[in-house]
Amino acid sequence: MNKMGMISMRLIAGLVAQRNALCLRSWRSFSGMTISQVGSCVGFSKALYLEVEFILLSQQGTRDYNPKQMAIREKVFDTIIRCFKRHGAETIDTPVFELKETLTGKYGEDSKLIYDLKDQGGELLSLRYDLTVPFARYLAMNKITNIKRYHIAKVYRRDNPAMTRGRYREFYQCDFDIAGQYDPMIPDAECLKIVHEILSELDLGDFRIKVNDRRILDGMFEVCGVPDDKFRTICSTVDKLDKMSWEDVKNEMVNEKGLASEVADQIGEYVSMQGGKDMAEKLLQDPKLSQSKQACAGLADMKLLFSYLELFNVTDKVVFDLSLARGLDYYTGVICEAVLTQTTSAPATQERNGPAGEEGVSVGSVAGGGRYDGLVGMFDLKGRKVPCIGVSIGIERVFSIMEQKAQAEKIRTTETQVLVASAQKNLLEERLKLTAELWDAGIKAEVLYKKNPKLLSQLQHCEETGIPLVAILGEQEIKDGVVKLRTVATREEVDVSRAELVEEVKKRCQQL
Amino acid sequence: MNKMGMISMRLIAGLVAQRNALCLRSWRSFSGMTISQVGSCVGFSKALYLEVEFILLSQQGTRDYNPKQMAIREKVFDTIIRCFKRHGAETIDTPVFELKETLTGKYGEDSKLIYDLKDQGGELLSLRYDLTVPFARYLAMNKITNIKRYHIAKVYRRDNPAMTRGRYREFYQCDFDIAGQYDPMIPDAECLKIVHEILSELDLGDFRIKVNDRRILDGMFEVCGVPDDKFRTICSTVDKLDKMSWEDVKNEMVNEKGLASEVADQIGEYVSMQGGKDMAEKLLQDPKLSQSKQACAGLADMKLLFSYLELFNVTDKVVFDLSLARGLDYYTGVICEAVLTQTTSAPATQERNGPAGEEGVSVGSVAGGGRYDGLVGMFDLKGRKVPCIGVSIGIERVFSIMEQKAQAEKIRTTETQVLVASAQKNLLEERLKLTAELWDAGIKAEVLYKKNPKLLSQLQHCEETGIPLVAILGEQEIKDGVVKLRTVATREEVDVSRAELVEEVKKRCQQL
Repeated sequence: MNKMGMISMRLIAGLVAQRNALCLRSWRSFSGMTISQVGSCVGFSKALYLEVEFILLSQQGTRDYNPKQMAIREKVFDTIIRCFKRHGAETIDTPVFELKETLTGKYGEDSKLIYDLKDQGGELLSLRYDLTVPFARYLAMNKITNIKRYHIAKVYRRDNPAMTRGRYREFYQCDFDIAGQYDPMIPDAECLKIVHEILSELDLGDFRIKVNDRRILDGMFEVCGVPDDKFRTICSTVDKLDKMSWEDVKNEMVNEKGLASEVADQIGEYVSMQGGKDMAEKLLQDPKLSQSKQACAGLADMKLLFSYLELFNVTDKVVFDLSLARGLDYYTGVICEAVLTQTTSAPATQERNGPAGEEGVSVGSVAGGGRYDGLVGMFDLKGRKVPCIGVSIGIERVFSIMEQKAQAEKIRTTETQVLVASAQKNLLEERLKLTAELWDAGIKAEVLYKKNPKLLSQLQHCEETGIPLVAILGEQEIKDGVVKLRTVATREEVDVSRAELVEEVKKRCQQL
Repeated sequence: MNKMGMISMRLIAGLVAQRNALCLRSWRSFSGMTISQVGSCVGFSKALYLEVEFILLSQQGTRDYNPKQMAIREKVFDTIIRCFKRHGAETIDTPVFELKETLTGKYGEDSKLIYDLKDQGGELLSLRYDLTVPFARYLAMNKITNIKRYHIAKVYRRDNPAMTRGRYREFYQCDFDIAGQYDPMIPDAECLKIVHEILSELDLGDFRIKVNDRRILDGMFEVCGVPDDKFRTICSTVDKLDKMSWEDVKNEMVNEKGLASEVADQIGEYVSMQGGKDMAEKLLQDPKLSQSKQACAGLADMKLLFSYLELFNVTDKVVFDLSLARGLDYYTGVICEAVLTQTTSAPATQERNGPAGEEGVSVGSVAGGGRYDGLVGMFDLKGRKVPCIGVSIGIERVFSIMEQKAQAEKIRTTETQVLVASAQKNLLEERLKLTAELWDAGIKAEVLYKKNPKLLSQLQHCEETGIPLVAILGEQEIKDGVVKLRTVATREEVDVSRAELVEEVKKRCQQL
């Protein structure tokens, strides 16, 4: 329960105090109980109980999308999918749950956030934590050695939700991955190009794409004197630099993870470095770092990557940043993360400063990814490797920003072109007949489900939902074989012959 | 374990016998164990263990969709969504899990099929069983009294999978619902019109839409002498008439559910009746059935419904069928179910005969729904009712049929318009530059991730994936500021100036 417990206590207290004064002295004992237990304790009604449930549901980090939010969501997805298809990607889908073992040992310290299903007989199942591990499982299972695919689907994490900042326990990921043995850095460059295209098209304000390479990080740890078995855990600590100051990060390295203070200081010097292709060239000459074979391999690839990024015309936003570490265990090469650099769009949090602070407070990562050449092999019977690189768009944060932007705007949630209406009574049957004619001709049409609706309420429905045209039927129109076609915005009305109505509606909707 | 246990035993036996001869005498003891327990018992390797897992995963009633299946799925969704939008629907989304209590008491005998999440602290959660209950919860929670919405999402049932017939444990539902207090039978008629439109457009062969009304069923039970408290359970038995013969159904009524034989016989007479508007009129005169007020209300509405269906021009496929009962508890009025009547499309099962048998063996229901006027009230604090009617398209069966149809066809899984290629070496940078130009102009373009790919392998990639155009770069073309544009199908090649390439690709793709 922890945080949730506190919230539910307060909610229940509020609700019950309103309607039911029982048991108030026992609130303190609720911590650690489930809401059902609390409910039966205070003996409140089923209905009240359900209301508490609903509030709790949304407090728990999931949410419903209402029609306006869906309209925004579909627009964002459309932009992203168009980009993925422009780059020649196919799409796949995998189940929402995987065998528990499939997810085990892939996520490092984050594994505790996996949702498990109850054992109801059969195998143990868990909800997917990301789309990358299921993708790797899919490749191994189907012996696929090269594919370029995108996958848009929900993933699940038992994390602390922070919904105003777009952090949920159920959230979408939009992943694009390239699997296959290719010449170095070409797919890697395409992935960064894709992030650049999507963030530009979504028009979220200025952004930066940080890149680094796990081999450079590991080489850096090696030459700084980090013991081999501490590489991954120190990497996790470095990853916190976007949320914590260097002092706090160093403190964790030294006091929690037992690193020597001077080793941490050496790391500190490297992780403050940011640059471009020139920095990769300079570091290749660094007397200490150049001692590490894997650092050199990473730096040479970084140089090559930047040369491709120049051809793709995206170096304006890409920064080689030695502090970028990424949390997940499975990365083996290039890693990247995109952040918005404007302060305006979403509420900033106090903790977010450190290295990012200088250039404006970041609203957090909106895309991330990297190369994971070993993951598919973990699922293959013979350990055959399939090199992969991918990026994931953190779409929930994008939704949050778009929703805030759209708050003032009127967004249509339907696409209806024409409402079939009548000013007179007893014309329901005629209205239904005409509506069906329009549907059958592919026109998006509505009719009010009333026998005798008032013309005013029919017109109001159009105003409210943005329907641009009204086809009005009356005794006279029916006799004359015509329909009065009204443009809602201008209130103009013209008689259109029934035979020409479909073409006329199509023509007018194209002009709108 | 049951069936699954048998399968996993056979799988493990086969795999282990191949690679590992240990423990063969202990197979019999595996029944009832989980695969992890079996794995650790026989001590086989992690890799072997994973292979078993994968096979089991697909045996468990979930599946991955490969790119070809996704292409089919998107085409089907597109048809359905176009229809829903044509009828002026908005869309919403809800979380994949709900509080366990939200689902409790809504599904009658089927509740045992609900997937629960493990209790990891916090509230008890279950995977959604359908989209109707979350919709009702959404309406009550947001105090929405009228909406026309569609929702396409996955639902979860711990049922026996029958994957060749399109029955999975994770499957899509495509729901369209109209909520609100309206004049009778108008929204109901629109729902049936929608089913008619979708099944016609999907071109799955001939179909029938059966309709009935829970009030007619209840009235029938009443006048036949079924005790009040047995209405719902006898209704469940009647629902099996599409899978069982009347003899077996009667047997269940009499021997399992304790109904008098002559009561069952009277029900038997009614449930063999099928017709249209005329049958509703006739039954309104039926000396016995007309004794029931609720039967009369249902029959009068059925007459009205058919008069609207005539206006919508869909009575050719709609049958008033007294044997239609539907399994779920929450229906209160009109119910419907659509079945395909052709024997060709999917493997028929032996059990499927009975009433449907005369007109060809049914491949099962592809759509169903009904009116549920009480469900929203179950979630409202003050019990305020919101009348609702909805239909759900059983899309997995549709996918199965479409996939079988498409087996021979070549279906494109990408939309790439042009491949940027080269016949000469050392032109990677030029290829990447041109590709980025095309992407930036909105052209769907690919480039092979090789420094020096052979022209043949570049052309083969186009043949295999259906890319219609190739933009070929060579030293001479670069010097001349042109690109050799090749049409894959005809092998024609023409030089196009670099400045005109984008327009030329767009023009040609429109002509294809």
